[in-house]
Amino acid sequence: MGAQTSPNRRPFIDLLVEGVEHLGSPICVGLDPVLEKLPEPVRAEHWEPVAAIEAFSTGVIDAVAGIAPVVKLQSACYERYGAAGVRVLEHVAAHARSRGMLVLLDAKRGDIGISAEHYAQAAVGLHANAITVNGYLGPSTIEPYLRAGLGVFVLVRTSNPDSDVVQGVELGDRRSVAGMMGDMVAGIGADWKGERGTLSSVGAVVGATKAADGRMLRERMPDQVFLVPGYGAQGGTQADVRALLRPGPLGAGESGVLVTASRSVIYPTGSEVGGVGIGDSDWGSSVRNAAERLASEIGSITRG
Amino acid sequence: MGAQTSPNRRPFIDLLVEGVEHLGSPICVGLDPVLEKLPEPVRAEHWEPVAAIEAFSTGVIDAVAGIAPVVKLQSACYERYGAAGVRVLEHVAAHARSRGMLVLLDAKRGDIGISAEHYAQAAVGLHANAITVNGYLGPSTIEPYLRAGLGVFVLVRTSNPDSDVVQGVELGDRRSVAGMMGDMVAGIGADWKGERGTLSSVGAVVGATKAADGRMLRERMPDQVFLVPGYGAQGGTQADVRALLRPGPLGAGESGVLVTASRSVIYPTGSEVGGVGIGDSDWGSSVRNAAERLASEIGSITRG
Repeated sequence: MGAQTSPNRRPFIDLLVEGVEHLGSPICVGLDPVLEKLPEPVRAEHWEPVAAIEAFSTGVIDAVAGIAPVVKLQSACYERYGAAGVRVLEHVAAHARSRGMLVLLDAKRGDIGISAEHYAQAAVGLHANAITVNGYLGPSTIEPYLRAGLGVFVLVRTSNPDSDVVQGVELGDRRSVAGMMGDMVAGIGADWKGERGTLSSVGAVVGATKAADGRMLRERMPDQVFLVPGYGAQGGTQADVRALLRPGPLGAGESGVLVTASRSVIYPTGSEVGGVGIGDSDWGSSVRNAAERLASEIGSITRG
Repeated sequence: MGAQTSPNRRPFIDLLVEGVEHLGSPICVGLDPVLEKLPEPVRAEHWEPVAAIEAFSTGVIDAVAGIAPVVKLQSACYERYGAAGVRVLEHVAAHARSRGMLVLLDAKRGDIGISAEHYAQAAVGLHANAITVNGYLGPSTIEPYLRAGLGVFVLVRTSNPDSDVVQGVELGDRRSVAGMMGDMVAGIGADWKGERGTLSSVGAVVGATKAADGRMLRERMPDQVFLVPGYGAQGGTQADVRALLRPGPLGAGESGVLVTASRSVIYPTGSEVGGVGIGDSDWGSSVRNAAERLASEIGSITRG
């Protein structure tokens, strides 16, 4: 964890716990901007797609700063525009950092050795504090990010329905594939604890829509923060999130969840077609209200 | 497979089979350029890292064009340099296409729905013919690339030693995790056959160092091309590759393997420290000789 290569001198988990405790609710706003869904005023003002996406992204960050401690940037939505999109991604991440937010790069990278080191350096260069990682290639695909000073969230049980085809399969020892991945995550995470000696900088992605597996995964990963997609729009409920909490009461910072919402916050009044902002000049307020609603709902079940 | 979004009007597998048949040997040269390993003349001429990497990459392509039908670009090595690196990646891929090579983007992407569609569009924009994909999130993480007109190679059994921790684990039904992934790949692949109705545009990554699993995986995936890393430098032998072939004789194009080598070709006389070209002004010839050696070795066991 050399200071030269690290974006933060302190472990990610400590920055996360403090950020959540400061704002009171463990939520994350997911930015996965798609041109066709952007508010009409943004598209009217910015003819070039990447310019519209940058303006929307920084606008969302301005709206949710002070409410959500973390912003999750969906790398694919920026990479789609090639080098120009990656430059926007860097600008957006820098803007989030300047607003006091932690940046989680949702890149789901997974590669070995030197390639993983390169991906880690790329993420550091993009101002990320943490990154989502795919562990199918084994433990050596995860450690390079930690050594570069990043927190990681390893894909364990994702919220999409057909993840069952792989992650839900039963092993010879009665664990599921997700349970096995969880055990691997817990094992690596033991070496990357924060200053309080409890929670780890190695977290896990566990969907709110997979709550039936949630209790099992919490038992296997007592010290992991679960990045929880699937709440709200995808059908996950407050009860589903509650099933993922560490045994408590512990307070929001130590609750062990980070609930992430994308469409329900960044397109708050919108449907799949059209989106929130069509004709809505005050889209920033709508985004802010949606983030406050999410913070309130999740805060009420994690306050301990 | 709308023509508008497709980089090729014909299925990837047909382009691959024809490319291999034309040149006689199913090999792929992997470009994962690391600044410290570049030939001294390249570094002397190009002070800026991305410029040196671009010059080296295009030089390797010029050296192996006409020998290897496919070049594999390690995305991490370019992404490391942010937007500037992605621009170089695009230039390098375009150069390879202009030299008649197929471009395999080794990006190991894995995400769902709209995000996977965006990654697919990004790969098309980078002139890729095919992409490596991680299937841990399920079948829906694979199909968007195919619909965008790309071939895919799904990570099934990778060549790194610690892949055993995940991929080698036994399921309740006695398959391994890799075997299960192989079955999923074969299932998806059945819908994406080439013009000859045999081989599929859905391939699999199967390391030469995992040949003990190779026969089992070949039985599960009779119509998949295996992208085979691990030959040579990592210890895989001709016998290991032979174990991965489709039952034949079939000829190189239908053999069902695409053996990929990186360091042993692009740094042919080099060690881990220093690399080939330190002080070697004729590094291009060394690369060409190494590629010819690889083509000869693999050609001799796949010619049927």
